[in-house]
Formats: sequence, C-alpha cells, structure tokens
Amino acid sequence: GAPLGSAFKRKNIPQPTNPLKSFNWSKLPENKLEGTLWVDLDDGRVFKILDLEDIERTFSAYQRQQDFLINNGIKQKETDTTDDTLGSKMKVKELSVIDGRRAQNCNILLSRLKLSNDEIKRAILTMDEQEDLPKDMLEQLLKFVPEKSDIDLLEEHKHELDRMAKADRFLFEMSRINHYQQRLQSLYFKKKFAERVAEVKPKVEAIRSASKQVLQSKSLKQLLEVVLAFGNYMNKGQRGNAYGFKISSLNKIADTKSSIDKNITLLHYLITVVEKKYPKVVSLHEELQSISEAAKVNLTELEKEIGNLRNGLKAVETELEYQKTQPSLHGDKFVSVVSQFITVAGFSFSDVEDLLAESKELYVKAAKHFGEETNKIQPDEFFGIFDQFLQALSEAKQENENMRKRKEEEERRTRMEAQLKEQRERERKARKAKENGEEEGEFDD
Amino acid sequence: GAPLGSAFKRKNIPQPTNPLKSFNWSKLPENKLEGTLWVDLDDGRVFKILDLEDIERTFSAYQRQQDFLINNGIKQKETDTTDDTLGSKMKVKELSVIDGRRAQNCNILLSRLKLSNDEIKRAILTMDEQEDLPKDMLEQLLKFVPEKSDIDLLEEHKHELDRMAKADRFLFEMSRINHYQQRLQSLYFKKKFAERVAEVKPKVEAIRSASKQVLQSKSLKQLLEVVLAFGNYMNKGQRGNAYGFKISSLNKIADTKSSIDKNITLLHYLITVVEKKYPKVVSLHEELQSISEAAKVNLTELEKEIGNLRNGLKAVETELEYQKTQPSLHGDKFVSVVSQFITVAGFSFSDVEDLLAESKELYVKAAKHFGEETNKIQPDEFFGIFDQFLQALSEAKQENENMRKRKEEEERRTRMEAQLKEQRERERKARKAKENGEEEGEFDD
Repeated sequence: GAPLGSAFKRKNIPQPTNPLKSFNWSKLPENKLEGTLWVDLDDGRVFKILDLEDIERTFSAYQRQQDFLINNGIKQKETDTTDDTLGSKMKVKELSVIDGRRAQNCNILLSRLKLSNDEIKRAILTMDEQEDLPKDMLEQLLKFVPEKSDIDLLEEHKHELDRMAKADRFLFEMSRINHYQQRLQSLYFKKKFAERVAEVKPKVEAIRSASKQVLQSKSLKQLLEVVLAFGNYMNKGQRGNAYGFKISSLNKIADTKSSIDKNITLLHYLITVVEKKYPKVVSLHEELQSISEAAKVNLTELEKEIGNLRNGLKAVETELEYQKTQPSLHGDKFVSVVSQFITVAGFSFSDVEDLLAESKELYVKAAKHFGEETNKIQPDEFFGIFDQFLQALSEAKQENENMRKRKEEEERRTRMEAQLKEQRERERKARKAKENGEEEGEFDD
Repeated sequence: GAPLGSAFKRKNIPQPTNPLKSFNWSKLPENKLEGTLWVDLDDGRVFKILDLEDIERTFSAYQRQQDFLINNGIKQKETDTTDDTLGSKMKVKELSVIDGRRAQNCNILLSRLKLSNDEIKRAILTMDEQEDLPKDMLEQLLKFVPEKSDIDLLEEHKHELDRMAKADRFLFEMSRINHYQQRLQSLYFKKKFAERVAEVKPKVEAIRSASKQVLQSKSLKQLLEVVLAFGNYMNKGQRGNAYGFKISSLNKIADTKSSIDKNITLLHYLITVVEKKYPKVVSLHEELQSISEAAKVNLTELEKEIGNLRNGLKAVETELEYQKTQPSLHGDKFVSVVSQFITVAGFSFSDVEDLLAESKELYVKAAKHFGEETNKIQPDEFFGIFDQFLQALSEAKQENENMRKRKEEEERRTRMEAQLKEQRERERKARKAKENGEEEGEFDD
C-alpha cells in the first residue's frame, strides 16, 4: 500500500523501453488519499503478474504511419499537402503519445483547416490578418489547447520531433507559442464581438421602446378605464369597488360569457363598445408596436450575456497589458491589433451598457406605473401579458367582424326571401286578375 | 381620480337591478395605488357613456337553463339524475354568477363524477368510506374549492338557491362544509399516501444497496488495482506515478487505442488480461447489481418528495387537532378515520426516513471510499459512472468474444483449406501413381 501521511515516496514502477500511448486519467491528489480504498491498493503486486512486454507491443507510442492515416480516415493526398515535414519521406513508424480519441478529433480538425502548423502559428501571431481561421474553426482549436500533461509528455520526446504524429506535433508546436491559449481566446473574442453585440442590442432596445410605449399610450390608459368600469359594474362585494386591477386580469376578460349567446364573451362586447364610444382606442396596436418583441426577451439571460461580454473584454485587456511587457517577436501583431480593437469595442460596449441601464430604468417605471412589482415580474412576463391581450383583442375583433357579416348576410337573405315572396304573391294575383279578366273578356267578346 | 393617501372612499358605482355575471379580475390592493396610472383613471366618466342596460341584458347572471345545458354539453338525462332539485321543474331561467370558463370546467367535472351534491358532501364527511371519489376526481375537486370571492357572491344570492346553476350551487353547498378544503386535502393525501411511499422506498433502497455494494465488492477493488498498474506503466511525468485516480477515469480507458489494431482499445485488452490472470473479477456485475437502479435516482428530488410527504402528514395532523375541537356532526367520520390513518402512516413514514438517513450515510461513506467529494458529486452521477463502465465492459467483452470467434473461424478455414490442398495433392499423386501403374501394368500384361 501507499505510505500514509503527507510524504508519498516515488513508486517503484517498471519502465517500458519505448514510450507508450497515454491513458488519460485524472490522478487523485495525494492529500485526498487518506481513508480511501486507494491506500490498500498496490500496483506492485500487479506488475508481477502482467505481461509487460505484450502491453508495450500493443500500446507502443510508435505506430505504422500508413495504418494511422487510414485509421483516421484522412486521405493520403490531404496529408501530403498539409504536413510538409513528413510528406515525402514516408517514415514507417511515427510517434503518438496523445490518447486515441483526442488525437483522432484533433486530426479531423487539422484536415478541415488545411493549414500547416507554421501557417496556423503565423495566423495566430498576426491576429489572423489574412482571415485564414473562420470562427467555427477557432472554436474547435480552443478545444485542442495543449494541456500541462500533454506538454510534459511531448517535451520528453522533442528530440524525435520528426517522428511525431500529426496531432502530437501540432500540440507540441502550439505549446511553444507564448500564451497560446490567451491569444486564441482573444482572437476568438475579437471575431465574435460585433455579432454578439448585434444580437444583444435589439433586445435591449425592445425593452426600452416597449416600456416607453406602455408608459405613454393614451389608448391603453383609456381602455383600462373602460375595463375598470365594466368590472366595477359587474362585480359585487369583495371583488367590486376596485381602483385598479392586476394587468394579468386583461386576459380573463374573455372568460366571462354572455347569458344571451355563449359565443359572445365580455371581450367581444368590450370591443363593440370601444369601437362605438372610444374610436381612438382602436389604434391601440399602433401605440404598442414593440411589445411582442419585448415579450420574447429574457432579461436574466440578456444581462448574463452582457456580463460575459464585459468579462471577455476585460480578459482581452489583461492579455494586452501582459503582451505589452513581452519582447516583441517578428510578425507578432497582437499589441497593435488588439489595442485598436479594445478602443473600438470599448465604445461599442459602453453604448450597450448605457442602453441597458436606460432600459431597465424605464422598465421599472413602466411596471410601477401599472402597480406591478418589478422584483416579482420580469419583462418577458410583463410584456407577455400585454402581447397575449393584444392578440386576443385582434382575434375577437375579427370574430366580431365575421359575426356581423354573417348577420348581414342572413338579414339580406331574409329580406330577399320576403321580397321574393311578395313578388310571387303579386304575380299570382296578377295572373288571377288576368284570368278573371280573360274570363270576363270572354264574356266581353 | 381616486383620492390619494390611505383613506379610499367607497366609490359611487351604479348598481344593476339584477345580479350580473362576474369578471374574475385581481384587484390591486389600495396601498399599491400611489404613483400608478390607476390614480388618474376615473370609471365615473365611463359610466356616463356606457349603455348599462344593454350590459345588464347581455351579462345577466340569469340565463335560460336550456341554453345553458346545451352550451355545456351535458346531456339532459345526466342532469336529471345528478341534480335532484332542478330535475323535473324545468325552470326557464337559472342564476349563474361564476365566470364562464370556471363554471364550464366545474360542470364537466360534476358530470363525470355522477354524484349529487349531497352524495359528494356525504363522501367528504365520511372520508369516502364507500369509495365514491377516485384519486383523479379528488385532484380535480381540489381545483374547484370555492374562493372567498365566490363565497361572497353566492352568499348574496342564497335566497335564490333553487335558481342557481349547477356549478354555482355546487360551490355554494361545498362552501357550507366546515374546512371543506382541508378535508378534501386530507382525503386526497390519505388516498395517495401508500402509492407515494411505494414509489419512494425502492429509490432510497437502491442508494443503500448500491453504496454497500461498491464498498464491499472485492472484484471492483481488484480491478481498480489492475487499472492503476496499467496507468502507471503507460503514463509518464505529471500524469504517472499515481496512487489513485478519479473513478470517472474508468470511462476513459476505451479512449486509448492499440497501435497494432485500431479496433482494439485498452478496455478490450484489460478484459483479456483480467479473464486470464484475475478470473474472479469476471463476476463484477453480480457484485454490483443495484448500481443501474441507483444511477437513476435524483437524490435532490427524492428528498424533496419525502419532505412533501412529511409536510403533508403534518398538515393532516394539524387538521385532525382542529377537527377534534369541533362539535361532531352526524355522519362526520373525520376524527376516527384520520386518527387511525395518522398512526399507520406515521410508522410507515418513519421507516422511510430511517432508511433515507441510513442510505445517505452509506452513500457518503461510499463516495469517500473512492476519494470523491460528496458535496461535488450526487448519487446519480457517482453510480452513473460505474453503470456506464459496467455497460462498456460487457459490450467490450462481447466484442472480444466476436473477435475470438472470427479468428477461430478464419483459422479453421485456413486449416481446412490446407487439408483440402493436401488431400488434392495426395489424390493427384495417387492418380498419377495409378496411371503409371496402369501404364506399367499394360506393359506387365
């Protein structure tokens, strides 16, 4: 077993003669071992039983290149063009220490990128001035940032650079770029920034406009006054004598049905009244045009995304400060490109933040204006209530229209039938009169 | 406008001559009005414009019964049998003050129940000794507990009891039962209790058994020792020289592929070694039978449901104490039935709580045993890791089996082809020998 306490000695592990593939486990830190089953385990016992030579043969880090290329589904041609160090020599065996799945996915990415390691290196140092790295590729590259354990492993084999498999060599080369991960992240952030701002801004704007609209709409105010009157006239006792109501009540209007015709709800009736007595209210929709957009905005998520943008920008700034202290390398454009980006992006982000502050302030005003509590109702729910009401309103309006038309049709038909009947009656009488006349005439003749 | 400050006077609202349908709004409390648009609104202005007589006609609480029955899709026959006061008289108009949607849904429920109000009342008072109220119906009934505003409204019309529509009358009658809602809730809780316990218990039990199994399994321990040896033999540097690893590493074993054959992973290889050198470990599955069940249990949800049971039981007990202080009515069996239920259910629930405590304790032990932190990993994830590993293990085992068979087939075919070739060779030689012999024979003859 392992010795207890803090002083764990280096174990006596048999060493393979050639490097092996790695098994990507997560070691338990030594301070976590006490009291676990691990202190009872002794791999020393197992080494005596295992056929270590067979393991070494089966999981050698050296594998036949041909096999490797076929296994990973990469066509020979592509490899020739993308990997300029191995291309023509065609070594029989190559070194691969990275675990299988990781190496495979990394190879797939590299074959899609169609760039040599040197070209990728240059693109990263110049902040991709030639636009070689699309956004989705950068996102993928961020998944293959060499880990500390990869670097240690590769560092041991750096004298065999030429024998390294494609993925191994790629990870090794990238690990030599100072602050590779931070550069990659800064580049990705820069590329995505405008798009993310463009996605966020209209949402902030929708809350701002919609808040203004419900605060200023005269039609809405008038309509609420009419609904208040209806409710107070109809409701008695506890439910009556109201000075105001929760806006969600607007979507209960249609629940009350006429006792004369079950197809007519209080909402249908209200519309008829408003059209006749308050004709200006009919333009309610026009005064509340941003509502439906604002009803779709989740403010919590929106603020989270704006927070992410803020943190991302800060991280790029921190990296800029770091890179300024570093000796400038040939072809390294990080400082100049990022300095300019930070200036422009900073202005653009301030705009968004100001707009957000204004929108939130207006929203709080709007919610309070209707007697709602902003800690209990979020913009999507608040505007959602109005949005649902506006939709119900326009549907009921259409239904009224249809009912009116149907009624007119019926009346016209009734009228025409009456006329037709009258006409027939007249004709019948005329015929009779004629018959009588003819008869009389017969006598006349 | 409404007067500011706390003293809102009763408004001067015109009163309809007959009761109207209600509009189910939510009034804003008067202390929430200050600073809102509601103080600017004056429904007094609207009353001067509205045609109140028309509203009264259209939304009268009295409606023609015939219409009402047809509208609500209830067959005349059912109504005759369920509503014994209205049945034969066939009044022309009936009173309905409850809002349309609520009345309609309540009617649907009552028509499904096929019980008169008196029968429902009796079932509730006797804690449903005759089993008239199925669980799903009780759940529905709980949605139609008369609200304070319903009761106020109906109370005003209680002199017109005979004219009340079915839903109105139902709500009114139920509102007369003392603690109707609490009785209904107690009855529903009692009916669902055994079923809920039966759903919860096997889940708690699964965590208990699975924890015990991973703590006691000798095969698992042996397997981990072997995996530890493999990792330490293969990994170098930072990643090597480990005393233990996170159990999630078990599911990374298959990521390392053989350099000889890409179809063979470290997991396939491990199985072959274990089958040969550690044959007892092959029965790992049998030692860990509860794992897959435990991997499905969400402990947070489980504890929430047990908490709900605890609170439900407490509420029923509180109601029991209350009912004990009330004068006993004829046919009211609440106290006797619930007393007995509480005793039995109390024991049963204690069992579950004890089992839960034991399971949680064992789980903490199990997680610590493997060096995992219980505040970071929940049972579903912890056992899920083992479950996934066991499945991968049995799949890889099957694949090994298939590979072995295919290899044997190939070998047999090769052997048979060789034999066949030999056979043909022998026959050819024999034929030749015979030909020569015959030739010789010819000469002999």
